[in-house]
Amino acid sequence: MKLVLLSGGSGKRLWPMSNESRSKQFLRVIAGADGRPVSMLQRMWQQLDAAGLQQDAYVCASKAQWEIISAQIGEVPFIEEPARRDTFPAIALACTYLAGPAGARPDDVVVVMPVDHFVDDAYFHAIRRLPDVLEASGAELALLGVAPTEPTSKFGYIRVRPGESARGWQWVDAFEEKPPAARAAELIRDGALWNCGVFCFRLGYLLGILAARGAPTQYAQMREEFHTLPKKSFDYEVVEKAESIVVSRYEGAWQDLGTWNALSEQMEHHFAGLGQAVACENTHVVNELGIPVVAMGLRDAVVVAAPDGILVTDKAMSSALKDVVGAFEGRPMYEERRWGTVRVLDVQKLPDGTEVVVRAVEILPGQNISYQKHLQRSEVWTITEGEGEVALDDRILPVGPGDVVRVYAEQWHAIRARTRLQLIEVQRGSALVEEDIVRRYLTWDEIKQHCGAGLRPHR
Amino acid sequence: MKLVLLSGGSGKRLWPMSNESRSKQFLRVIAGADGRPVSMLQRMWQQLDAAGLQQDAYVCASKAQWEIISAQIGEVPFIEEPARRDTFPAIALACTYLAGPAGARPDDVVVVMPVDHFVDDAYFHAIRRLPDVLEASGAELALLGVAPTEPTSKFGYIRVRPGESARGWQWVDAFEEKPPAARAAELIRDGALWNCGVFCFRLGYLLGILAARGAPTQYAQMREEFHTLPKKSFDYEVVEKAESIVVSRYEGAWQDLGTWNALSEQMEHHFAGLGQAVACENTHVVNELGIPVVAMGLRDAVVVAAPDGILVTDKAMSSALKDVVGAFEGRPMYEERRWGTVRVLDVQKLPDGTEVVVRAVEILPGQNISYQKHLQRSEVWTITEGEGEVALDDRILPVGPGDVVRVYAEQWHAIRARTRLQLIEVQRGSALVEEDIVRRYLTWDEIKQHCGAGLRPHR
Repeated sequence: MKLVLLSGGSGKRLWPMSNESRSKQFLRVIAGADGRPVSMLQRMWQQLDAAGLQQDAYVCASKAQWEIISAQIGEVPFIEEPARRDTFPAIALACTYLAGPAGARPDDVVVVMPVDHFVDDAYFHAIRRLPDVLEASGAELALLGVAPTEPTSKFGYIRVRPGESARGWQWVDAFEEKPPAARAAELIRDGALWNCGVFCFRLGYLLGILAARGAPTQYAQMREEFHTLPKKSFDYEVVEKAESIVVSRYEGAWQDLGTWNALSEQMEHHFAGLGQAVACENTHVVNELGIPVVAMGLRDAVVVAAPDGILVTDKAMSSALKDVVGAFEGRPMYEERRWGTVRVLDVQKLPDGTEVVVRAVEILPGQNISYQKHLQRSEVWTITEGEGEVALDDRILPVGPGDVVRVYAEQWHAIRARTRLQLIEVQRGSALVEEDIVRRYLTWDEIKQHCGAGLRPHR
Repeated sequence: MKLVLLSGGSGKRLWPMSNESRSKQFLRVIAGADGRPVSMLQRMWQQLDAAGLQQDAYVCASKAQWEIISAQIGEVPFIEEPARRDTFPAIALACTYLAGPAGARPDDVVVVMPVDHFVDDAYFHAIRRLPDVLEASGAELALLGVAPTEPTSKFGYIRVRPGESARGWQWVDAFEEKPPAARAAELIRDGALWNCGVFCFRLGYLLGILAARGAPTQYAQMREEFHTLPKKSFDYEVVEKAESIVVSRYEGAWQDLGTWNALSEQMEHHFAGLGQAVACENTHVVNELGIPVVAMGLRDAVVVAAPDGILVTDKAMSSALKDVVGAFEGRPMYEERRWGTVRVLDVQKLPDGTEVVVRAVEILPGQNISYQKHLQRSEVWTITEGEGEVALDDRILPVGPGDVVRVYAEQWHAIRARTRLQLIEVQRGSALVEEDIVRRYLTWDEIKQHCGAGLRPHR
């Protein structure tokens, strides 16, 4: 069995904590086992371990998410989506990867699941049984169906053939997407289940579908032609066209946690971060900033202060957020990178167009930032803590607290931390990153060889 | 007539905008004449001008307030309190200043008024009439009494002798401080007025009181012995012991604006700064930060985001703030200085005790920061915008965008802006400012002479 974890999402609904580089599943706000907050990804990764499934798992995500995934759960088998295109292209890509670089065979069973759901441990036991359900039923697809707890019209419903649940699975009759509440109640009475985006099939089944529609079945070709696949969901392109589908019932907790209202219910503390709440009821405060938040006399509210912005919302209103924050989307002000973290302290746009950005950069021991040069930007680094070394054109220089490094435009540069290293960076110039040249995957030894090879500074 | 404006206050009740260096009267949030927000000080200074009183005015305040007062209303006649000690010592100091350096005579009339009240223009016409009231009545003291609008127990009440209001003033019988509401209603029925802290007397009257109690009457001596004067109010030490007092009635608006609830009523806009309010009722948002604030579904709330912190409060609760924020008082994160502004971007305390502070500094054209050296702190300045010159030990160096200046501990330094100049400063070291040496009042020419005199760097 191969397990593909789909990591999608942009997460406007959880602004200001979520942003382009930090989707919902990466927010460290969920109550963890040892009392320290964890992200949904970290929680799920630990649950996969407990269920004995971790060694079968591949994470499928965009390049932009690779650094934060590595920072949160380590270097895991990673399938990189060349672009964000919806679940059908992502799953198709993952299957060609499994059949190619991962060496899976056509009759190997694949289970695909989203990484951004909040579930019980029992969910993973249900996942583990899916290959048996597929085998026993002889169906093309086996799904996981969540036992509904309310006739909501927010989800898709899986209608089942009645009276066959003794085996632990049922044949699927049809799907109904987001029915009105009255219809949802009828569906639930007839045994329908919520569709939670878990799909189980044999690898050969999907490769056959790809071949039949003339899509690539080789990984390299799939990567190249990825942009030609339709931006459609796997439900739409595959599930709704399948001839035989079974569903296995899951009775435990399953939550999207896609709004501050829902997410706050899973937080361990009513107040996280610096500050204080006074005379508040049913109110959650999350403060990621270095300045205190004081909340007084609030009811049913969520207050979130993060580098990207500040949200104060009535809980019931929090689902309306995604329509509001589009106007404020901008540069992510906090990023977890594979080598450490970056906090943007200040951004100013000067009248002549020059952008001045001040960032606090933390580099973990033994890590280095990517080797790069900027065509239109200079940088000044003031080392505030820790020891390390800098690669600057053809030189390798040791640096420590109090040292200042000036990086001119067109200079190749990188910095490596020997001990945990912090610096303040003042950038001046153009922020057109597409003009920059970054050699992302070089090790520090390779960077030193480049320096030794005598690259010359261009000022 | 000499007018003494008392500028006191710490303003915990208006946290996070008010702080040690920015008391209530300096917050630029009041609707101004041209639609731009002004501070209470700026509003009052303009009202004094309109009433023809500005040329008689002296501002009495602590040294810490001098820079922001200069920034907001220019270089005004300034009486510097050596320490903060309450209104009796402040008024005593001001009177010795008037009699000494300001050259006033004993029979000149002095009017003392607080600078942090929100009043109508009519208030200043009432102030202008006070010397006539003092003269006509022959009383020792003439007060301004505000016609009460509600039987509140928040203020002091001035009881008057009945049936004499035809002349525009009445004899004062007694004072009652913060009576219960029922008693306040009785007092109002009998014609009592609110005490608003405006005192009118002849200079010689107060100098006589000082002499009688053995306190200094000379300005220089008063400054030296200021710390020996009791930390008591002028009401307690003088008014309540006076033999003959009259009060002039003022019918217009008079507000303390000492809570966010009260202050928000005088704001022109429901939302100031970056961000948006959605579906909010009777809610005011003030955002001084560079990141957006989104408020959704709030009622009767105030949201204030400022460099010192973030407040979200139910309006009715806002008066409880002063009991809460003591724990969060710290370094002011935003300061208006006579030469520009300072924003603290980041503060970190390293395990070894070293403090790292990142500040964005703006210096106005032609202005310079004070000439100073730090014994245990180094600084790195990255000039991000503008042109100027730096004094560093015995050198004067021109600087412009992109230049980096390193200031080691014990180096004398200052910087002057030729055009509006911005820099990012990274400080490392001890923040024990009492060890630093600052020559605050040197002009740039004097600083250049010091440099020319050949001071040597000490590293």
